Amino acid sequence: MDNSGTEHSSLPRWYVNSLRVRYQESDQMAVVYHANYLNWFEMGRTELIRELGFTYRSMEESGVLLPVTELDVKYKRPALYDDLVAVFTRVVKLTPLRLKFEYEVRRPESREQLEGPIWHIEDELPGELLVTGSTSHVWVNREMKPVRLDKTLPKLYNTLQGNFKGSS
Amino acid sequence: MDNSGTEHSSLPRWYVNSLRVRYQESDQMAVVYHANYLNWFEMGRTELIRELGFTYRSMEESGVLLPVTELDVKYKRPALYDDLVAVFTRVVKLTPLRLKFEYEVRRPESREQLEGPIWHIEDELPGELLVTGSTSHVWVNREMKPVRLDKTLPKLYNTLQGNFKGSS
Amino acid sequence: MDNSGTEHSSLPRWYVNSLRVRYQESDQMAVVYHANYLNWFEMGRTELIRELGFTYRSMEESGVLLPVTELDVKYKRPALYDDLVAVFTRVVKLTPLRLKFEYEVRRPESREQLEGPIWHIEDELPGELLVTGSTSHVWVNREMKPVRLDKTLPKLYNTLQGNFKGSS
Amino acid sequence: MDNSGTEHSSLPRWYVNSLRVRYQESDQMAVVYHANYLNWFEMGRTELIRELGFTYRSMEESGVLLPVTELDVKYKRPALYDDLVAVFTRVVKLTPLRLKFEYEVRRPESREQLEGPIWHIEDELPGELLVTGSTSHVWVNREMKPVRLDKTLPKLYNTLQGNFKGSS
Repeated sequence: MDNSGTEHSSLPRWYVNSLRVRYQESDQMAVVYHANYLNWFEMGRTELIRELGFTYRSMEESGVLLPVTELDVKYKRPALYDDLVAVFTRVVKLTPLRLKFEYEVRRPESREQLEGPIWHIEDELPGELLVTGSTSHVWVNREMKPVRLDKTLPKLYNTLQGNFKGSS
Repeated sequence: MDNSGTEHSSLPRWYVNSLRVRYQESDQMAVVYHANYLNWFEMGRTELIRELGFTYRSMEESGVLLPVTELDVKYKRPALYDDLVAVFTRVVKLTPLRLKFEYEVRRPESREQLEGPIWHIEDELPGELLVTGSTSHVWVNREMKPVRLDKTLPKLYNTLQGNFKGSS
Repeated sequence: MDNSGTEHSSLPRWYVNSLRVRYQESDQMAVVYHANYLNWFEMGRTELIRELGFTYRSMEESGVLLPVTELDVKYKRPALYDDLVAVFTRVVKLTPLRLKFEYEVRRPESREQLEGPIWHIEDELPGELLVTGSTSHVWVNREMKPVRLDKTLPKLYNTLQGNFKGSS
Repeated sequence: MDNSGTEHSSLPRWYVNSLRVRYQESDQMAVVYHANYLNWFEMGRTELIRELGFTYRSMEESGVLLPVTELDVKYKRPALYDDLVAVFTRVVKLTPLRLKFEYEVRRPESREQLEGPIWHIEDELPGELLVTGSTSHVWVNREMKPVRLDKTLPKLYNTLQGNFKGSS
């Protein structure tokens, strides 16, 4: 669809960050309300970008926004209040115009199981699988017009791309 | 997968309910934060069931819950703070074990455009299309075990089913 | 503290708007999570300003923001999922620099009990009292610097003030 | 008001926990929406109780709930998306029937400034002060009837009380 650049099929690494489920995130079924997983996905993207040496905040301050254009989620088991959950995030598609992330929300037995922030695709991820999902995004400017990331923020684009190359 | 009953391909009616976008629903892109549309979908389901003469609340009180197992959303245009938005909801799949809803979030020009709560599939829906989506659900009891709706709440099941039949 | 204008002790009218409690607003105590009442207060302020012939949205677009500087809430009885609740809002303090609102969240027996949008102070308000609260605000510009409302938006200021005078 | 037990005037320790501000917590003023600080207070309480060797979750599972009856908040400076913020929480009032917490939300310059989880009252707390507040609570059972904590969960009561005594 975009032939504006080489498309990579998958970033070979998961980035993980963990959180404690908030009381506010529960609902009267006594499980996490389904929309809240999207907030955790957003935290996963933010921390992935931080791990790459950038921040989503400074990206926005420089005029590049990354709204969600599409998402899907599959709910397997519910997270509960006060659970420690781990959000695994990876980039599965990258073009100068678009970006797609995949997520796994898992419930590890302990913080120790999470080790460092980076996991490889071939690793068996720790903990019980709760929810999977993906979000698709388009790079836009403050007027919500599409921008090419390779022109606007070439450093970030190259870092994302290098990450793919590093795996081949 | 479920051969536990006849599957219907589509409920011929949209049920609409409208809301005013809350300040709390905006984010720093000055648009509605993407997860909030899921709350509006939930309101759409609730009002559809009320229009059929039942309430989701009393359904839950009688021990039948309807958690989300899967969802997808496509974002076309953002809703803004204080917009009047209309959520169109319809049932697109019904078995004794499962239920699937489809949604269109639209921005009508005025409340007058919304007329009654029910719209037919062949109608052109009013207003600008903002977001589409679907949610899949499974009927469960309080222990989160699947239940057959035709056995547990036959009246509700028959009403949903009759709604399909009414269209053929 | 502000001797920048006459201070009025109370707007003689309550403005009411009603809403249906969302599933997302419940928590695992099966009541509305306490922070959500603040969203309802925000809706109350928005609708009060609309009733006066202005919109909070256009006020913001013209560069005047109204952040909360202080709030207090008293919780008497919890609202439940799917309850119809009414938010009564009134202005209790107005200067060119500051504004204070008071709120009563009540559970009417029916929509019919709510009649028109305006109630007088001496009226007995309908329904069961759930929560009371107040929020204090300061008028600021986009740089979060205080502005005098009587200079910046004199029409809105005069309307708010006239509302007080109308009662004496 | 309650003469059902000795009342202590203040727990001598602040418990701190830190968090990264979520995109979802911002609003279109590009600051944290004011209601979200209440979620952070809730996280502060949860972590304070964990530091004392209990969990709010198991307290609830044993049938003791702790709803908010009253709260007040003062907003001094806004937190921004992606800020690292620290929530300092302490107990300021304890009876067998009631509990009151105080909070300071601060913006430290770095995680290093936060050291261990416990700070003493006489310590100068690190970082810029953003928001202060308090929440009052009552111990209740699942039917929302008041319970005496010293009878129902004497261990937790004694730990909270010992914490006060430790300071005198």
